[in-house]
Amino acid sequence: MASNHFGNLFRITTWGESHGKAIGVIIDGCPAGLPISDDEINAELALRQPGKTAYVSPRGEKDLAEICSGVFEGKTTGAPISIIMFNQDADSSKYEPIKDLLRPGHANFTYLEKYGIFDYRGGGRSSARETACRVAAGAVAKKLLAIQGIQVVAFIKEIGGIAIQESPFNNPAGLQDATRKSPIFCPDEAATEKIIQAIQLAKEEGDSLGGIIEAVGFNLPAGLGDPVYEKLEANLAKAMLSIPATKGFEIGSGFQATRMKGSEHNDQFIVNAEGKITKSSNLAGGTLGGISTGMPLIINVPFKPTSSIMKPQKTVSTQGEEKEFKIPEGSRHDPCVTIRAVPVVEAMMALVLADSLLLDRCSKI
Amino acid sequence: MASNHFGNLFRITTWGESHGKAIGVIIDGCPAGLPISDDEINAELALRQPGKTAYVSPRGEKDLAEICSGVFEGKTTGAPISIIMFNQDADSSKYEPIKDLLRPGHANFTYLEKYGIFDYRGGGRSSARETACRVAAGAVAKKLLAIQGIQVVAFIKEIGGIAIQESPFNNPAGLQDATRKSPIFCPDEAATEKIIQAIQLAKEEGDSLGGIIEAVGFNLPAGLGDPVYEKLEANLAKAMLSIPATKGFEIGSGFQATRMKGSEHNDQFIVNAEGKITKSSNLAGGTLGGISTGMPLIINVPFKPTSSIMKPQKTVSTQGEEKEFKIPEGSRHDPCVTIRAVPVVEAMMALVLADSLLLDRCSKI
Amino acid sequence: MASNHFGNLFRITTWGESHGKAIGVIIDGCPAGLPISDDEINAELALRQPGKTAYVSPRGEKDLAEICSGVFEGKTTGAPISIIMFNQDADSSKYEPIKDLLRPGHANFTYLEKYGIFDYRGGGRSSARETACRVAAGAVAKKLLAIQGIQVVAFIKEIGGIAIQESPFNNPAGLQDATRKSPIFCPDEAATEKIIQAIQLAKEEGDSLGGIIEAVGFNLPAGLGDPVYEKLEANLAKAMLSIPATKGFEIGSGFQATRMKGSEHNDQFIVNAEGKITKSSNLAGGTLGGISTGMPLIINVPFKPTSSIMKPQKTVSTQGEEKEFKIPEGSRHDPCVTIRAVPVVEAMMALVLADSLLLDRCSKI
Amino acid sequence: MASNHFGNLFRITTWGESHGKAIGVIIDGCPAGLPISDDEINAELALRQPGKTAYVSPRGEKDLAEICSGVFEGKTTGAPISIIMFNQDADSSKYEPIKDLLRPGHANFTYLEKYGIFDYRGGGRSSARETACRVAAGAVAKKLLAIQGIQVVAFIKEIGGIAIQESPFNNPAGLQDATRKSPIFCPDEAATEKIIQAIQLAKEEGDSLGGIIEAVGFNLPAGLGDPVYEKLEANLAKAMLSIPATKGFEIGSGFQATRMKGSEHNDQFIVNAEGKITKSSNLAGGTLGGISTGMPLIINVPFKPTSSIMKPQKTVSTQGEEKEFKIPEGSRHDPCVTIRAVPVVEAMMALVLADSLLLDRCSKI
Repeated sequence: MASNHFGNLFRITTWGESHGKAIGVIIDGCPAGLPISDDEINAELALRQPGKTAYVSPRGEKDLAEICSGVFEGKTTGAPISIIMFNQDADSSKYEPIKDLLRPGHANFTYLEKYGIFDYRGGGRSSARETACRVAAGAVAKKLLAIQGIQVVAFIKEIGGIAIQESPFNNPAGLQDATRKSPIFCPDEAATEKIIQAIQLAKEEGDSLGGIIEAVGFNLPAGLGDPVYEKLEANLAKAMLSIPATKGFEIGSGFQATRMKGSEHNDQFIVNAEGKITKSSNLAGGTLGGISTGMPLIINVPFKPTSSIMKPQKTVSTQGEEKEFKIPEGSRHDPCVTIRAVPVVEAMMALVLADSLLLDRCSKI
Repeated sequence: MASNHFGNLFRITTWGESHGKAIGVIIDGCPAGLPISDDEINAELALRQPGKTAYVSPRGEKDLAEICSGVFEGKTTGAPISIIMFNQDADSSKYEPIKDLLRPGHANFTYLEKYGIFDYRGGGRSSARETACRVAAGAVAKKLLAIQGIQVVAFIKEIGGIAIQESPFNNPAGLQDATRKSPIFCPDEAATEKIIQAIQLAKEEGDSLGGIIEAVGFNLPAGLGDPVYEKLEANLAKAMLSIPATKGFEIGSGFQATRMKGSEHNDQFIVNAEGKITKSSNLAGGTLGGISTGMPLIINVPFKPTSSIMKPQKTVSTQGEEKEFKIPEGSRHDPCVTIRAVPVVEAMMALVLADSLLLDRCSKI
Repeated sequence: MASNHFGNLFRITTWGESHGKAIGVIIDGCPAGLPISDDEINAELALRQPGKTAYVSPRGEKDLAEICSGVFEGKTTGAPISIIMFNQDADSSKYEPIKDLLRPGHANFTYLEKYGIFDYRGGGRSSARETACRVAAGAVAKKLLAIQGIQVVAFIKEIGGIAIQESPFNNPAGLQDATRKSPIFCPDEAATEKIIQAIQLAKEEGDSLGGIIEAVGFNLPAGLGDPVYEKLEANLAKAMLSIPATKGFEIGSGFQATRMKGSEHNDQFIVNAEGKITKSSNLAGGTLGGISTGMPLIINVPFKPTSSIMKPQKTVSTQGEEKEFKIPEGSRHDPCVTIRAVPVVEAMMALVLADSLLLDRCSKI
Repeated sequence: MASNHFGNLFRITTWGESHGKAIGVIIDGCPAGLPISDDEINAELALRQPGKTAYVSPRGEKDLAEICSGVFEGKTTGAPISIIMFNQDADSSKYEPIKDLLRPGHANFTYLEKYGIFDYRGGGRSSARETACRVAAGAVAKKLLAIQGIQVVAFIKEIGGIAIQESPFNNPAGLQDATRKSPIFCPDEAATEKIIQAIQLAKEEGDSLGGIIEAVGFNLPAGLGDPVYEKLEANLAKAMLSIPATKGFEIGSGFQATRMKGSEHNDQFIVNAEGKITKSSNLAGGTLGGISTGMPLIINVPFKPTSSIMKPQKTVSTQGEEKEFKIPEGSRHDPCVTIRAVPVVEAMMALVLADSLLLDRCSKI
């Protein structure tokens, strides 16, 4: 327990249930002097807004975040930053009829086993709505990173087996532009079109799709991350697996590395045109020994297909009786949660990097 | 920094360099009353011993662990358990000639960037030797788990592209027996043979192989793991990515989930023959919402091919001069580190589960 | 930084400035199944309400706390409990003229040195208003303690040198009644009267008084607290010194112990009438080796006289010019903050005990 | 549990029992590049050595510390620093006859209640021998502080009611010299003489004395310590109350503040001869709002008289039978533990300051 915080020096604590009064996040440990506004946070939140397109849930929630502390005259003061989003469009009555059924792919069974009690309205604390808090906090982390020139971009790499074409994403601005132009955060136009069709089809069938998100950290200095248990990739892996619906993690070559030989996989150290030591390739994905090399930080995160599907499913009640499970008419679910997870992955990478940036201030005397 | 500990309530802190005087681990938070002995720890350590077979490094180190505190009359007292292993067979002089070269695939570059100083002897703190401490601590964690009937088994699933045949590993005892009988921890005899040949070949070529380790947790109660940031899979992912040479993590269906539909991927709740609620399949891999379901906990961990290869490689010196890197004659390296990582993966899973088991004592009033 | 939380398993995180939009607290780690309501929290908050009597600040704030998460159908769910109090009666304009003066006995100088920025309105984060969050969280902790029969009572022991008569406070109910009957939380009627006069006099002089609060924990089981760095008294000391205006801490005999001999100071183990091992005296104050003995837990906390006095004081500006400091007309300050600190001390003891109670669940296998 | 560590960024973890094989400490988080040697640590350890004079325990232990990791070519590397002291002069057989008796003023009762098991040999983990680890770690912390010009000096202020004369300890070097010249760490020669006589007398009577240690931190920058729960004095209070036999804590005016008026107690801000903002007095004791002001940091710590006295005492056995307790012939105990606690207090203050110094690196962008 006491398990709702993430990070050491740049630490967030989130609270709130899907259909409660509000949700929120406290950022504790943000250095003083950082300019930040409600608008900047809301701009990030708009990216994961439900109801934005046909491909995500039609819930009409406007996540209007309000900074309630820690900012004075437009700048952080070193005090904890409390950001609150009030819940507005939440109709819990629909959940009443299914409150005693175990939802396939959902957490009500495990919460009941663990706590003996479950706030079933909209999934309560287990709802992906909690991730709005991560995006809000991530907006602040990104501003801290930007001071050092660090930028994080996440995008859809694959949905339902349809993948983007390999391309040289060398510059963060171009990649971000291409990603944000796509209604599904996919920087490849052709793939975007095919994926939209696939999602449409799944939706018509009352079914859902999964996918893979790639995230890249650009312009990291060498030296971020700590050896052994606080390796940069270890914290990234934890961050990503803490996002609902994720099933794995890869850094750099990932599972492909297992079929390569050492002589193929070792990136070679070279001196570049500017006379700086760098590497000729980046199969490592941006770290060595858990510490950033200065090359782009590259990760992949697989998401399972949305558990909430419209098709009826067999299940049992909490009492063990066989039942049919059907999502209530009018309740709102994404046919592919991977899409709205893009800003969440981005936020979590930003949070890990902000934390490691502060920790690194103490590495030398 | 302060980054050499793992776990919250069952917490380990490790110390020591590959060629220092000793390495060790403190286990802080082990409940009082657990029977444990040097012999039990050394039995686990023997599994990752270098020099055991031709397929692993010939370093003649005998990791003889000694419990130096926290155990009285054969039982834990609640005080921190300090386990020390003295280094005996360490010849650092061989590392002298290469101390100013950046080792491909190694951490000396990033350590130098971060700390401005690097204990190059045997890789210092970045050496996989540190993982002996994890295995020693894991032996204690396993004893704590055994009280609840929980057992953890890890094994080689694939090396150099050669995979075991899918098989129903339903019982932990059988799986462990088959695994320990194999000189490379691979429960499939046919695969074992082919893998040994592949490793032999790679070795002759002065090259190395990577592979995948699978680990299974058996007999977990439902309810382990916490929601949101302390999800069981999040802590497992962090645990695994903290092991040197790992490039990823999967729970259950992992990356395969991304190509399935929700209707295919949702495990179905049923009532089993004993009248207990369980699931008809386990694509989830043993958790829902980050909390254990009571089904086997199944993870996959990919390892890159060993970075230290005998073949000469191009590199640069710390001063930026082009150099050839060649591992010193007589220094000892595994052609496939994945094999010796099997007990390490097992230990890390045991540590995560022991911690979550204690944390779960506080979930209800 | 990341310094706004307290506790390990039963952990609070507070946020908010005196004159910000709101203040609040997240309780993370409260076990599921605990009945709690807004009313119970507000009843505790009423005790530290400003404006209650002439002896405390006339600020008309009604600290109306609202539970915004973590409680469902009247019981805790295991999810974080967010409690928010909106600020209503805050007039910041009065602080404008003194914003560039260093306030004697106040923290604006040190905040500016540390952060380079200070939210001067009402003292911002350094204001004692933050302690309302502790009282709100303490209300929840007390309910958890009550399940085990543990009760915490704090009271005024001395103000301006006027002390209560030594009395046998053997029963918690009687002590609490006597304390709550007094407008200044002093269980001794004669002392209450004299203290009120002294405060009145100090107020007339534009001056302020300090005092001592005693707190007692009743019905603790033996075994709470951990050896070495998490001793029960160590955490209590930290808890108390984290309250604004405190200058020290004593457990049991405190400073008096230093003038006693070992033969006088050692409490003697005996067997009581019920056949239970206990002690004939309690100079230790309820712990031995940092762990509770089962005897009452007794601490003393000294508070300095309120820094904000009406008398003009010499000071300098942030630019180093000599200035006179005068509290703005109409601003509101307690002539003796010790009084309103009584419920805060009680809350902090309750928080330490709730945390140690949960931690103790992991002491044995 | 997991309660054997102290500090956040500069974190120590200690292990070992009084009569076990060894005791030790891991320093995790010490920045790289700090020069440190075994000799420097052993010089500090010599100060708390038992057997040094007639006034402390005659145990002949030579605490020879050995740095076993984290230091390379004389400098810290950023890796954890493991310091080990092997136990040599420990005769546990003497403890056999009293192992079932509850020792007055000791922790065997509470350990048994908490853990159900107690390593009674020499007090096991509850022994003050653990404090040698703090002194060893403190030696490293002091070196880190010295880089910033910070120095910590602790000394005997009062023993058995005999106090030093108030004197202007303005310079750290002079104070340290006077303190170290005294066989009992008392900078006042006249008081030293009287105290030695009082201890001699107590010893002859088979009794013991308590006392007060004062510690001063010199040359702190303004800005150390964090608001709210990580106030500098809160962490100092926890640090001090974690030392065996302490009964309280004061910063600055301490309990005396409670009898002063606000107009007397508020230190006045002035501009000094060098044009720097400072204060005309230091009743605050070096902090405001939990953050250092730049004035000397002044604390007082009361120690109870040694619990282990030679006089026979009444007690009961663990079975509840009335018994006489007598310390075994030839076992070794200080008639006044306060004296040997002086270097321990110094070390703990150094550890708190080193941690706050690192944390402060993250206060501004």
